[in-house]
Amino acid sequence: MKPIERIHNLKAIEWVNDRVRLIDQTKLPGELVYLELSDYRELVSAIKEMRIRGAPVLGVAAAYAVALGAKAIENGSREGLLMEMKKVYQTIVYARPTAVNIKWAVERMRKVVEDTKDVSKIRLALVAEAKKIEAEDEEANRSLARLGAQLVQDGGTVLTHCNTGALATAGYGTALGIVRAAWESGKKLKVFATETRPFLQGARLTAWELLKEGIPVTLITDSMAGHFLSRGCINCVIVGADRIAANGDVANKIGTYTLAVLARENRVPFYVAAPTSTIDLSIPSGEGIPIEERPPEEVTHIGRVLLAPEGVEVRNPAFDITPNKYVSAIVTEKGVIRAPLGKGLSKIFKEGKGG
Amino acid sequence: MKPIERIHNLKAIEWVNDRVRLIDQTKLPGELVYLELSDYRELVSAIKEMRIRGAPVLGVAAAYAVALGAKAIENGSREGLLMEMKKVYQTIVYARPTAVNIKWAVERMRKVVEDTKDVSKIRLALVAEAKKIEAEDEEANRSLARLGAQLVQDGGTVLTHCNTGALATAGYGTALGIVRAAWESGKKLKVFATETRPFLQGARLTAWELLKEGIPVTLITDSMAGHFLSRGCINCVIVGADRIAANGDVANKIGTYTLAVLARENRVPFYVAAPTSTIDLSIPSGEGIPIEERPPEEVTHIGRVLLAPEGVEVRNPAFDITPNKYVSAIVTEKGVIRAPLGKGLSKIFKEGKGG
Repeated sequence: MKPIERIHNLKAIEWVNDRVRLIDQTKLPGELVYLELSDYRELVSAIKEMRIRGAPVLGVAAAYAVALGAKAIENGSREGLLMEMKKVYQTIVYARPTAVNIKWAVERMRKVVEDTKDVSKIRLALVAEAKKIEAEDEEANRSLARLGAQLVQDGGTVLTHCNTGALATAGYGTALGIVRAAWESGKKLKVFATETRPFLQGARLTAWELLKEGIPVTLITDSMAGHFLSRGCINCVIVGADRIAANGDVANKIGTYTLAVLARENRVPFYVAAPTSTIDLSIPSGEGIPIEERPPEEVTHIGRVLLAPEGVEVRNPAFDITPNKYVSAIVTEKGVIRAPLGKGLSKIFKEGKGG
Repeated sequence: MKPIERIHNLKAIEWVNDRVRLIDQTKLPGELVYLELSDYRELVSAIKEMRIRGAPVLGVAAAYAVALGAKAIENGSREGLLMEMKKVYQTIVYARPTAVNIKWAVERMRKVVEDTKDVSKIRLALVAEAKKIEAEDEEANRSLARLGAQLVQDGGTVLTHCNTGALATAGYGTALGIVRAAWESGKKLKVFATETRPFLQGARLTAWELLKEGIPVTLITDSMAGHFLSRGCINCVIVGADRIAANGDVANKIGTYTLAVLARENRVPFYVAAPTSTIDLSIPSGEGIPIEERPPEEVTHIGRVLLAPEGVEVRNPAFDITPNKYVSAIVTEKGVIRAPLGKGLSKIFKEGKGG
């Protein structure tokens, strides 16, 4: 295990020696354990079990899963390969339904398969495309972080939810990338991190990343955010996103909607940081975004400790929808979008095509 | 250990054979363990460690602690006793600063000491007064529960926070008492219980009580309440209180303010259920209510499992303040008070004196 000096240079996932190497995030912060996987089904399992999580890095992981999937297939004919890849795409896309980055990445990879006429070259082309997706994500994060850093006030306190750092992306982070960029630009700031039940990404991952970076962080339970917002302790809220609908409604980690309502109630700006790969113009509003429901054990247990009486009924939606009216701005690598969000989002995509 | 059939006949605390017998609530739901204490300092420790918790039952526990404190003192003179009791009162009142019921009960007990001229009779008088406080609390709960049950709609779903049941009171419960009374009156209803981090009173105690009663309960994390409120799954929110200021601002378990804001945002009524012993007319508004900050280990650990990186800074306020504007009604044993809450609260106390 290598010592880690700068966490934002840490890679949540990498293509190494024809395999995928990833940090098992369920083991953090106790242990830094790497997994090396060569079968796409193993990688899909790791995604389902949240050994790797975070919408942007799930896009990268999905791309590498397609590349691994093409290796697994020994069928030499182009038709056979195309047929078998369909199952690969499906398995990957259904791993986690809310984060649109998975679907988005699989679409990009599928196009590579379709555009590469020579079967023998498909594999290499897929690996190259996945690496490109990875590099683009890190670059997008650095760009949006620079833009977002201007929204953070010197001496201020940022409230964030879940984990949106190096571990959730190809590198640097989205909401946490903004915190990093502001810090690196010399702004003094403090972060309040919600623990983010049930999976504790805030306690386990965000607190760990910020401690390693030397950025002051205070851990609170999700239920405490309102208290600190109402007492004027928070200057802005910044979160990531798992999918943004065409009208600017935001699907993100369960609890995000609550923070957005609390922020508006207390006149604190609420920012969403996401690369454009998280924007899904095919869905008009948040109502159309599927909300993944995860196993009850995530709520009733921590590790092997049972927290509740046996047999209790549990609901465990992993995400919620924040209607666009609560969102002060969406920070993307192509610009900071303010209300009306729908107009701003569609404009960014039109410019993208024109450019 | 006796089998428990009806949890609302369960006594969180009782005076048995010149000792205090209480359920160690930190062991629930895994084990039902009783503690028998004969030294008031042991009882104060149990209160501080939250082996017994819940504002109304803390009033009862404080009363029994005073009775135990008078036993501990072997000084025969009345002046000596009065002097030494001062330390007893102080130790008890400072055990937990937010729940006013402790202060309220100690005041009642102090009056008994002062009014009983014959030193040899003080001990018995104190035990009698503590038992009276206990009986009055259960009776108040049953009365407010009957009144509150009328606010609960047949077939509806109630969201509650923390534990306000038999375990939090001398018996029956406040917010959970209302749920019980509605259920017993034949109304079909369901309860969504927040787990209530960091101490998990909802997951450990409320879910347990409701399961034992056969009232349908669904456990969620605190961060999920907003999601279900925004989707129309909740018909009303009912919580307890640790202290209610003269203007109707409510101090209650951390996370209550958040639920109140979410309820109003989604046009769902937000009810506070509390006996009048929880009302503190000496404090004009919530700003004057002290908020207890508890040890960081409650946030960073569950049992012995460390959830966060070592050395992370933590905040752990145990309560928050819900401003009166979010409260649809306060349900007391003397009536249901609606806005303007301040007027209604002062009226109830005036009537109390007149009656």
